[in-house]
Amino acid sequence: MPAQAYDETNIFARILRGDLPCTKVLETDAVLAFMDIMPRADGHVLVIPKAPARTLLDIDPGSLATLIVEVQRIARAVKQALVADGVTIWQFNEPAGGQEVPHLHFHVLPRWNNVELRPRTGATDKPEVLIALAEKIAGALATGG
Amino acid sequence: MPAQAYDETNIFARILRGDLPCTKVLETDAVLAFMDIMPRADGHVLVIPKAPARTLLDIDPGSLATLIVEVQRIARAVKQALVADGVTIWQFNEPAGGQEVPHLHFHVLPRWNNVELRPRTGATDKPEVLIALAEKIAGALATGG
Repeated sequence: MPAQAYDETNIFARILRGDLPCTKVLETDAVLAFMDIMPRADGHVLVIPKAPARTLLDIDPGSLATLIVEVQRIARAVKQALVADGVTIWQFNEPAGGQEVPHLHFHVLPRWNNVELRPRTGATDKPEVLIALAEKIAGALATGG
Repeated sequence: MPAQAYDETNIFARILRGDLPCTKVLETDAVLAFMDIMPRADGHVLVIPKAPARTLLDIDPGSLATLIVEVQRIARAVKQALVADGVTIWQFNEPAGGQEVPHLHFHVLPRWNNVELRPRTGATDKPEVLIALAEKIAGALATGG
């Protein structure tokens, strides 16, 4: 079964091209991490490869390996920066799998004991809130997460 | 913040030692994949490192890279074998993050359009059902997923 073609107009492709803004947490040659604008938890970060991969199933294994190591760094930094008790990782493939943007992404969600995830309402957080969280997480990354 | 010590008595450690059975899908030098006995979807597979890592945050990056490449192979095989429309990946860290067994694991869940995940009831599937699914998935792995 051939993979579906990559859609160059998806919003993460536009963020990667600089056509849309994002609140950046980390950028490397291969990976971009930025704040989810509809966070399900304070500090909800998305980590994506720069390579145009549609899903986890499509990406070449070497790029996937590079990506997961940055997911780990972000998970450590989020936990430290936001004094979280745990971290939930989600990665959804195809609409049936829960995927909304057709560019491979990992969700990194800091979690606290007895705090539920926020419901999925489509509400966006204010830029200043996201920027403050991104700065905290970037600070933890700089000190080794 | 030091990581918590690895608990050698957790059920995945006991499976890795051969003290508890599992319905195996794939085994390599570094990774074991087996059927979740309380599946949230038909074909729900768990993929774990053999290294005694508690969470995604603890494991060494090289072992994590090896692990995610096997997660990818399993995701492709599950999708092909069970003619799924998508795949959901979960990875939970610490009880606050949803983790129940304190050995790092990725959940690979085949998904179909308009089919919800099964509710979390603690019900187990019959061994013969799990074995038949594992054989299908292993068959897809053998032909390249």
